[in-house]
Amino acid sequence: MAEKKIPYKIYLTEEEMPKQWYNLRADMPTKPAPLLNPGTLEPMTAQELEGVFCKELVKQELDNDTPYFDIPTEIRDFYKMYRPAPLVRAYCLEEKLGTPAKIYYKFEGNNTSGSHKLNSAIAQAYYAKAQGLKGVTTETGAGQWGTALSMACGYLGLDCKVFMVKCSYEQKPFRREVMRVHGASVVPSPSESTEVGRKILAQFPGTTGSLGCAISEAVEVAVNTPGYRYVLGSVLNQVLLHQSIIGLEAKLALDKYDVKPDIIIGCAGGGSNLGGLIAPFMGEKLRGEADYRFIAVEPASCPSFTRGAYRYDFCDTGMVCPLAKMYTLGSGFMPSADHAGGLRFHGMSSTLSQLYADGYMEAVSVRQTDVFQAAEEFARVEGILPAPESSHAILVAMNEAKKCRETGEEKTILFGLTGTGYFDLFAYEKFHDGEMTNYIPTDAEIAAALAKLPKVE
Amino acid sequence: MAEKKIPYKIYLTEEEMPKQWYNLRADMPTKPAPLLNPGTLEPMTAQELEGVFCKELVKQELDNDTPYFDIPTEIRDFYKMYRPAPLVRAYCLEEKLGTPAKIYYKFEGNNTSGSHKLNSAIAQAYYAKAQGLKGVTTETGAGQWGTALSMACGYLGLDCKVFMVKCSYEQKPFRREVMRVHGASVVPSPSESTEVGRKILAQFPGTTGSLGCAISEAVEVAVNTPGYRYVLGSVLNQVLLHQSIIGLEAKLALDKYDVKPDIIIGCAGGGSNLGGLIAPFMGEKLRGEADYRFIAVEPASCPSFTRGAYRYDFCDTGMVCPLAKMYTLGSGFMPSADHAGGLRFHGMSSTLSQLYADGYMEAVSVRQTDVFQAAEEFARVEGILPAPESSHAILVAMNEAKKCRETGEEKTILFGLTGTGYFDLFAYEKFHDGEMTNYIPTDAEIAAALAKLPKVE
Repeated sequence: MAEKKIPYKIYLTEEEMPKQWYNLRADMPTKPAPLLNPGTLEPMTAQELEGVFCKELVKQELDNDTPYFDIPTEIRDFYKMYRPAPLVRAYCLEEKLGTPAKIYYKFEGNNTSGSHKLNSAIAQAYYAKAQGLKGVTTETGAGQWGTALSMACGYLGLDCKVFMVKCSYEQKPFRREVMRVHGASVVPSPSESTEVGRKILAQFPGTTGSLGCAISEAVEVAVNTPGYRYVLGSVLNQVLLHQSIIGLEAKLALDKYDVKPDIIIGCAGGGSNLGGLIAPFMGEKLRGEADYRFIAVEPASCPSFTRGAYRYDFCDTGMVCPLAKMYTLGSGFMPSADHAGGLRFHGMSSTLSQLYADGYMEAVSVRQTDVFQAAEEFARVEGILPAPESSHAILVAMNEAKKCRETGEEKTILFGLTGTGYFDLFAYEKFHDGEMTNYIPTDAEIAAALAKLPKVE
Repeated sequence: MAEKKIPYKIYLTEEEMPKQWYNLRADMPTKPAPLLNPGTLEPMTAQELEGVFCKELVKQELDNDTPYFDIPTEIRDFYKMYRPAPLVRAYCLEEKLGTPAKIYYKFEGNNTSGSHKLNSAIAQAYYAKAQGLKGVTTETGAGQWGTALSMACGYLGLDCKVFMVKCSYEQKPFRREVMRVHGASVVPSPSESTEVGRKILAQFPGTTGSLGCAISEAVEVAVNTPGYRYVLGSVLNQVLLHQSIIGLEAKLALDKYDVKPDIIIGCAGGGSNLGGLIAPFMGEKLRGEADYRFIAVEPASCPSFTRGAYRYDFCDTGMVCPLAKMYTLGSGFMPSADHAGGLRFHGMSSTLSQLYADGYMEAVSVRQTDVFQAAEEFARVEGILPAPESSHAILVAMNEAKKCRETGEEKTILFGLTGTGYFDLFAYEKFHDGEMTNYIPTDAEIAAALAKLPKVE
């Protein structure tokens, strides 16, 4: 009963909000492998990267040593518009599951973009503006990153061009409309407006698109338009740095009540949420100060950690981007159109890949019908309609809590609830109508995509 | 600069959350007129009302004297799932408007139902469950009330039948789907499944429905199905009582920082939000302890306060419900299908009507294109995509703040941000595409609807 003293929702005060981002790489014994120039296969220099990304962001991208970066005041003020995000004690879910486990989730959906993506969007837009740029280009899959970037750009008065994976563009007209509310222009990808888009369309005429191919288009436009740079919502080190705000806030909130999680669970597409959520906890583990179990959850239809290879690959389908060393299904891998949520990226953050390769983290893949089942159960007891992406983590958190019910262990589980599912109701409808399927790629499909990768040592 | 000490968002702690609802009627010098039996035109007795509503709710409905009602622990625990709702200081909006005014809004959209409606839905579902009922029936217009009730019933394991105004049913498929997530059954109204529905369809074959007619259908089913009662999301005294949680929390949050609002603004359809928001402030005004300006904002397409008559009318189109004395456009009035948001009810809460008649409150009506313009401006600076209903209040708050810019007055403005617009993006799209019109009923149309009302002194 003393337990109940922990409120349903823990909010930090604005004064308690982190003033610095935490750079997990600083504490890694083995640093993530560097990005390679796709032409020379040599590590990308700052100068080379600055043709694609803003200067300040390149600095953050390449810095493996500085543990903390100050968050500029302007970004902290923007954060105050929708942060601190609550850390929720899932009393209702615990009761429903009849588990002795204690479940917490960090909820990042309380803003119009509906997800954690805004944390990095405002940072990247801010540095673009500070550098005097006119605008930025990007890609979006499920639409959350594009929405977030539109919001940030709209706020700062930057132009914003979004290439949206075609199947999302068609399935999620409302996402498009929110981007329009914020003044962005949105193009379905692959499109006829870029060279790489035309090439992909010629090769795969019926394609519903992929993140990798939308990235190629956005990069092409950024590089060829004066005053523009490209920004990316996941995978990159800089994104994980900005997203560390999630974990830092969660840890501060838990520390207030002397709570130590046993298991930390996050969904993983490119790694932005997972990397941000686990950052300060993983830092403690790497420094030998504490131990935690970390679980990355990915869709069975796009299982880079659990079924991919750890090797150099392009971040995009068009093979115009730098190569990253990561768990990958091959940059030519196209997730099935039947896959509803985001988490469609063929690869994974280099930082998280290195940590996984070094055994600091586990990974599991889950089927989407199970994910939606968990999402619905969660919505009914916790009053939040979760995004399909987030629901991957919900499912595994619920499974771990059920194990505790069997063993009687009072484990403390923390998971990341990255966003809301208001724009995913076509998928919920499919699920209700029993029309949702579970496409799982064959070994041969994955092997074929991997076979096309460049040979790098 | 000392001013800045007020955070962007003021959250009460869970201990500070109100433990009682406040019954505004207790402090009214002239009580709202009683409901009348549509057959006898005599005041409805508790016994008569109990055929339609739950016992405990009938007690709340009829009690004009008890100032405070305890909130049952179970409801308070449910509230903790999504409350306390933040009181937001709109620093970003103030800066954008360049106004010396200080703007606050109480944000009620942080739950899956997306609006304040959940505050009363859980209360009504709780009392239905406590009475041992099997289920409840209701109507929904914009869909917010139906969603809220579905959530509450899903949580408590009560059956929930929702009659949804046909044009919303068609324009808002996602709303339907959220209700399904929570296990409700949803029928477009008017429907062939009720006697009154069939009658209305015969009379107006092409009708897109109205709240008044959905109410008739829901009441018919409740009264004829054993173990069922009818619940309503607005208009009634009991609803205003439950919604007082909005104003009570807002007032506690303001009191913490010694802030007194000068102007309090709420959108008004049936009055659930407005009545809840203003309750404790209006109480102070009625008791002579403080003075505030209250502004009710209604759509120009459904202007009950500003163009209706103050007289007895049916709450529904089918004329099966009790009569209420209220500002009304006539229960036969059908708002144009071109009207996008909620706030489509032909009448207004009796309590608010009496206060308006007695001069305690002002009212204005606004055009929907102006409302969407304000909504978009707000979204871009405050990071919340507002519901069209809420945006009526946003528009008037912005107008009042602009007046302060001209006069230099540092007025403090409080408004109710009742919910989010995630399910209203078809309307936003129409607005962007320049296809939104402003239908305003003619005097003759209103006079014709009023002419059909029963003569009650």
